[in-house]
Amino acid sequence: MNQYARIYRDALLNDVVPFWEKHSLDREYGGYFTCLDRDGEVFDMDKFVWLQGRQAWTFAMLYNKVEKNPAWLETSRLGIDFLKKHGMDAEGNFYFSLDRKGNPLVQPYNIFSDCFAAMAFSQYGQASGDQESLDLAVSTFNNILERQHNPKGKYSKIIPDYRPLKGFSLPMILSNLCLELEPLLDKILVEETINACVREVMEVFLDKESLMVYENLLEDGSLSDSFEGRLINPGHGIEAMWFMMDIAKRRDDKALATLAKDVTLNLLDYGWDKEFGGIFYFLDRKGHPPQQLEWDQKLWWVHLETLVALAKAYQMTGDAACMDWFEKVHQYSWKHFADPEFGEWYGYLNRRGEVLLPLKGGKWKGCFHVPRGMYQVWKALENE
Amino acid sequence: MNQYARIYRDALLNDVVPFWEKHSLDREYGGYFTCLDRDGEVFDMDKFVWLQGRQAWTFAMLYNKVEKNPAWLETSRLGIDFLKKHGMDAEGNFYFSLDRKGNPLVQPYNIFSDCFAAMAFSQYGQASGDQESLDLAVSTFNNILERQHNPKGKYSKIIPDYRPLKGFSLPMILSNLCLELEPLLDKILVEETINACVREVMEVFLDKESLMVYENLLEDGSLSDSFEGRLINPGHGIEAMWFMMDIAKRRDDKALATLAKDVTLNLLDYGWDKEFGGIFYFLDRKGHPPQQLEWDQKLWWVHLETLVALAKAYQMTGDAACMDWFEKVHQYSWKHFADPEFGEWYGYLNRRGEVLLPLKGGKWKGCFHVPRGMYQVWKALENE
Repeated sequence: MNQYARIYRDALLNDVVPFWEKHSLDREYGGYFTCLDRDGEVFDMDKFVWLQGRQAWTFAMLYNKVEKNPAWLETSRLGIDFLKKHGMDAEGNFYFSLDRKGNPLVQPYNIFSDCFAAMAFSQYGQASGDQESLDLAVSTFNNILERQHNPKGKYSKIIPDYRPLKGFSLPMILSNLCLELEPLLDKILVEETINACVREVMEVFLDKESLMVYENLLEDGSLSDSFEGRLINPGHGIEAMWFMMDIAKRRDDKALATLAKDVTLNLLDYGWDKEFGGIFYFLDRKGHPPQQLEWDQKLWWVHLETLVALAKAYQMTGDAACMDWFEKVHQYSWKHFADPEFGEWYGYLNRRGEVLLPLKGGKWKGCFHVPRGMYQVWKALENE
Repeated sequence: MNQYARIYRDALLNDVVPFWEKHSLDREYGGYFTCLDRDGEVFDMDKFVWLQGRQAWTFAMLYNKVEKNPAWLETSRLGIDFLKKHGMDAEGNFYFSLDRKGNPLVQPYNIFSDCFAAMAFSQYGQASGDQESLDLAVSTFNNILERQHNPKGKYSKIIPDYRPLKGFSLPMILSNLCLELEPLLDKILVEETINACVREVMEVFLDKESLMVYENLLEDGSLSDSFEGRLINPGHGIEAMWFMMDIAKRRDDKALATLAKDVTLNLLDYGWDKEFGGIFYFLDRKGHPPQQLEWDQKLWWVHLETLVALAKAYQMTGDAACMDWFEKVHQYSWKHFADPEFGEWYGYLNRRGEVLLPLKGGKWKGCFHVPRGMYQVWKALENE
């Protein structure tokens, strides 16, 4: 086995999965704790629906793809049952956060809660055969499609009349979600949705000339010279590129794979911190100060998604530049994010690569990017 | 004149005021540009209502309190007219942001837009005698009082049923706003509002045992062991303490002044970064990782409000510890925030005190904390 494939497989199975199994399961009220200190101790018990869905997805995915380990299915069920019982309002929209017992704290303003719940129900349903989960996956997916053009609904504070912006996140996530739910959906709907997403991502949000991916565009697809319109999130664009590579593989579309690889390398070169190493979180396309005070921080998910994109790009195109960059990002990540003493990865580093928050999980970091990234790198490089 | 009084007066009149007069006035569409590069160049033209109100207030305040300079009144009028024409929705609520021309971009979800507009109309009305401004100050103030128990209204994403939190910001700002509008308001309303604010700030949000000020409490005044409930914003608590000192002076209440001084020193000692100097932005009372990724950054307003609180505390109590701390915060601030080359102060430093964003103004930093802080320090120390 390729040496990198072995490193990522071993870290996944011997470090990351056991870390979450040991520290995150709430056997009393169900669901998962995600606010975990450096050593895994729970420091807050609120339950964020993104992370409940993501962890349930991760364990069901491991069950489906790695090994039929009944403990993994059971761990997934812990989150699935909690989401079924507490996750939704009367209309089937997913709350953003709940307290430990499942009482809702924050309204369903964030459609990505629904996206990650749908992914979880789909993987768990396929793993267990539970019909209720399969039905919930489909109904939640349909609800997302209905809400997609006004995802925040009544909670939106934006007045769209004078600067009608549209965001990159939703078509990007839908392109992945659609593949996740493929066995449960109508074939034509799948093809149409994937085609629409690829078009949005690669022909609208991707600027073909600069090979940059924008986070926000005007509704007609043109650039907006505003804070939102100038915003670049290199890790986000790179993550989307490996979703595109998965679609390229499915379609055997070499041109799409090559373009996604070129965009990955371009965003990485643009986003790489030439002084301290690592990939910046946010940049302004014109070089102005971004609004995000955390712009120069180094985030775990950005680096994992980049490793996945580079591994897949190398596997699909054989471009040696992908392996050079993979080695560079690998070195940086394992030096700064990994915690050999207590396991798992830190989430947030400052620009210099020093630990900014000594946590392994919080409001946004759960059991998702680290295990998914490690699984994807392992599989992409296994036969290289 | 006291040497510090001279430094702050000279910086205010010879550096800060001219900087904003030179770079921020939009003579074409009215109002002010606030997104200014290091050298004052405009890098974005959106108009944030907080900052429109704050700059109009600053120039009218200088006119009322420092010198009857007609250019200052005219500069204030530029923002006042823009706010009158574009700032409000049909119900008299103030939008959060507008584009350069005044078209609304973000709904009136943020009641502090209304607070700073009311301050601006009051100062400008008193400076110019403009009855429309005086009327708008009063009607906006009344609207704030009506909205105070549900300030975000329909834009709130919080479900209050299971964790009914209340915030420190509004009673804190109201205690200052009430003094700002005093000449325009019914005397009994002023007394009642001030009394209620002092009670909330000093008997509810201040924990008398630890002398800590909490940002959020449960409705019954008890602590909430949650991210919101554990949050400490040292600069915010310290700013509130000089509002309390102003009320103490007005009432000749030595006990209130002494308590506000003690809280200032305690929050400063707690919030001071013993490794790199400067005051942290956010801390978790139990020492857990805060949710705010910007927690360790050093912000201009935190340091200016602290200088004001220390200067006033020294003037009112004579406690030498206040002057020791004043000198320490003064040294830090002028070394790291001031920009002798291009003028004004940087807004955002990283933990080490290095410039994080090379701007003099943006979405949240405008012509307010720097000039107000300098004016307040000058006046507090003038006769010391």
